[in-house]
Amino acid sequence: MTPEEFRQAGYAVVDWIADYWATLPQRPVTSQDPPGTVAAELPPRPPTQGEPVEAILTDLGKLVAPRLTHWQHPGFFGYFPANTSGPSVLGDLVSAGLGVQGMLWATGPACTELETVMLDWLAEALDLPARFRSTGRGGGVIQDSASSATLVATLVALHRAAGGRWREVGVDRRYRVYTSTEAHSSVEKAARIAGLGSDGVRLIEVDPTTRAMSPTALRAAIEADQAAGLVPALVVATVGTTSTTAVDPLPQIGPICAGYGVFLHVDAAYAGAAAVCPELRFGHAGLEYADSYCFDPHKWLLTGFDCDAFWVADTGELVEALTVLPEYLRNAATESGAVIDYRDWQVPLGRRFRALKLWFVLRWYGVEGLREHIRRGVALAARFADRVRADDRFELVAPHPYALVCFRLRGPDGPNEELLARVNATGRVFLTHTRVAGRYTLRLAVGSPQTTETHVDEAWALICEAAASATPA
Amino acid sequence: MTPEEFRQAGYAVVDWIADYWATLPQRPVTSQDPPGTVAAELPPRPPTQGEPVEAILTDLGKLVAPRLTHWQHPGFFGYFPANTSGPSVLGDLVSAGLGVQGMLWATGPACTELETVMLDWLAEALDLPARFRSTGRGGGVIQDSASSATLVATLVALHRAAGGRWREVGVDRRYRVYTSTEAHSSVEKAARIAGLGSDGVRLIEVDPTTRAMSPTALRAAIEADQAAGLVPALVVATVGTTSTTAVDPLPQIGPICAGYGVFLHVDAAYAGAAAVCPELRFGHAGLEYADSYCFDPHKWLLTGFDCDAFWVADTGELVEALTVLPEYLRNAATESGAVIDYRDWQVPLGRRFRALKLWFVLRWYGVEGLREHIRRGVALAARFADRVRADDRFELVAPHPYALVCFRLRGPDGPNEELLARVNATGRVFLTHTRVAGRYTLRLAVGSPQTTETHVDEAWALICEAAASATPA
Repeated sequence: MTPEEFRQAGYAVVDWIADYWATLPQRPVTSQDPPGTVAAELPPRPPTQGEPVEAILTDLGKLVAPRLTHWQHPGFFGYFPANTSGPSVLGDLVSAGLGVQGMLWATGPACTELETVMLDWLAEALDLPARFRSTGRGGGVIQDSASSATLVATLVALHRAAGGRWREVGVDRRYRVYTSTEAHSSVEKAARIAGLGSDGVRLIEVDPTTRAMSPTALRAAIEADQAAGLVPALVVATVGTTSTTAVDPLPQIGPICAGYGVFLHVDAAYAGAAAVCPELRFGHAGLEYADSYCFDPHKWLLTGFDCDAFWVADTGELVEALTVLPEYLRNAATESGAVIDYRDWQVPLGRRFRALKLWFVLRWYGVEGLREHIRRGVALAARFADRVRADDRFELVAPHPYALVCFRLRGPDGPNEELLARVNATGRVFLTHTRVAGRYTLRLAVGSPQTTETHVDEAWALICEAAASATPA
Repeated sequence: MTPEEFRQAGYAVVDWIADYWATLPQRPVTSQDPPGTVAAELPPRPPTQGEPVEAILTDLGKLVAPRLTHWQHPGFFGYFPANTSGPSVLGDLVSAGLGVQGMLWATGPACTELETVMLDWLAEALDLPARFRSTGRGGGVIQDSASSATLVATLVALHRAAGGRWREVGVDRRYRVYTSTEAHSSVEKAARIAGLGSDGVRLIEVDPTTRAMSPTALRAAIEADQAAGLVPALVVATVGTTSTTAVDPLPQIGPICAGYGVFLHVDAAYAGAAAVCPELRFGHAGLEYADSYCFDPHKWLLTGFDCDAFWVADTGELVEALTVLPEYLRNAATESGAVIDYRDWQVPLGRRFRALKLWFVLRWYGVEGLREHIRRGVALAARFADRVRADDRFELVAPHPYALVCFRLRGPDGPNEELLARVNATGRVFLTHTRVAGRYTLRLAVGSPQTTETHVDEAWALICEAAASATPA
């Protein structure tokens, strides 16, 4: 495809996306087609001869788009948001066009340096502790997801626990990882990948009301393990848990980790973004105790997946744990010691130029624009929670410090499951569920920049309607 | 950013990329600016108020583009290619615009099903063994890189070696991984991440001429380990090693793995793409023995990074090893057992809609178009190798079955290092190096669709010129 052919086809694809966004509110949020529908409509083998872009775009509109869950839809309230934005898409487009592979500084100097600066910009925007800035021993890097950030933190913690010998001798099954019963499943998955198995993970109980990790229980677990000859290696604390956005108390957890010499990773995948607003930084109190920290701009900061921002306080330790240097990657810049080679900060070797989308987002919105976005989400969630609170049929199940509201019909689980199915079947909105202290609970998470009071009110109206027909009068 | 604002800015970015590609041949392939140049030119903190896209594009052209290594340049001959193409960029653009998160079938049905079909299309295009097709127990998935594919294969192998108990009890330090001394560094890194340490990896010697793994040495190592009470868990064979594109002999290695019950992963990251051409499928002889296999469409198949295609023969085993199912991800489709949830096939939870770029590439080029691209690369490499062969000052260091030529000035390493530095300093071409049997060796890898005979001949002319001034007359 020549540059001129690309130019023409590129306009058509830009038009397709602009039209898709403009028509999103009219589309059902989810597809109702059964499994196998798309696969059945595609040819069993690739074409022998090439086809024009127009033919592909036609099939995109006909076969693919109607069978998606529309994550950018203003009525999408499921999981956590994963919202993108125009500037993010454009930054990613530039990245795709440049086709730079940033495994080493030498394979893309601007790719590396822009990333370092963007992570410093983010640290500034969130007012993160000085220890994470690149001006000192710390620094940040883009991972694909918080799952990978947790895995990397786990590996560095194991390396430290082994006195720096983990790289050679492997994992010791006596190492233990601590996280709350409400933590994300990626903590267990990281421990599994690292060779600790689920046996290596201690799930610490939470406060029954706040759903936040109990520091007392954490201390007791660490002490019991030490007494049993086991080695506490890592605590993963969460700022904004997936179920209910609970905030683990870092001011208490931090000193415990410091006291027992345990690596502390803080996972703020969803809620970290809120810290662009000074009034929403409460979750970061005590963050100066953390050895590593991450949040996902790809969740609530208008940056398309994948973009997890991950910082460590000691980049030397990180690199020591993960570095590999085969002959074919040796180069003068690496050997000078004056550059960052981000391949040593992550699991894969290769990497895309993901800093561009952050650069486009941070510059196009400015910090004030991002604050406005976060505040709008928090206000819309509060508006919805007010509706729930005012209706005796419903109860709020947990605090809603950010933009997620957890609620349910009072009483048994059955009508709640039925309610969720009915509401989602309308195609107007999409909510998901969790269990809080064993009880089936509905989750409404606000995130899309297209979501307004109208959409939140419509969600509430649909919920009330479904509740009226689902529960006995 | 409204859809209409996006449309206008999108055209501008498309123009920027088309112009970038059109002017690539005139740009120096690499930047000569010292470390820190880009960082020094960027503000220390993000803007408070937003800025227009035009301002960002201006800085993109001024600050970023001149400080890149241009991987898409027709004079880029370094490492392995990582070439993208117009259709790939457009498919990726659609993916960014849709902003779908495909962790579950339910969170993007078309995202999941298109991926399954694309991996079957690729298996068909490469004529992979039936065991990897989704019609049976096998199936494919997109990983970000071959590094991650190797890691996933390692985890499944450990799970199998532990009789399915690895998930719970963790890794046993007696497990051993076997790969050749020429294998990619990601094999050692995967073993390290999985908790085996470098002590858990056996580097098997290679044939001194072909640089391919010695089956005799592999068998001996497995037997010695078994006799010592260790547990052979995984063999990673390579089709097209990074140094010299050596091909490990699967027809001999496969039966050894089968005989000792060892998991066999085949890493064809670079060379796999060549198998779209029937006459270049020799490296896949014996592939029916493999438990898993991967290659990178993002290297030599005109698909932008990140796109590693990874297949396993037994998807049930893979899912068992990697699955996690917290309450908040439960849904009717998953519980029906009728769908694939790709989160269970990889390390991270979230995932982008990467099948779109494959769909665009496979349809726009057609299989014949991709064959033409591969054949052109092989022919250009052969043309270059002929020049080397005809010049007594130089020697070819290894066979060149694909599109990489390994060569050097006869004699000591010093003049070769000097030669590489001089040639790269011209800014017209970019080559990298390796060591073959300890000797410093230059690598010229052809991959860009923009590369023609003119560029290869220019590379040779520059090399001859530099050689004339670098070596004594």
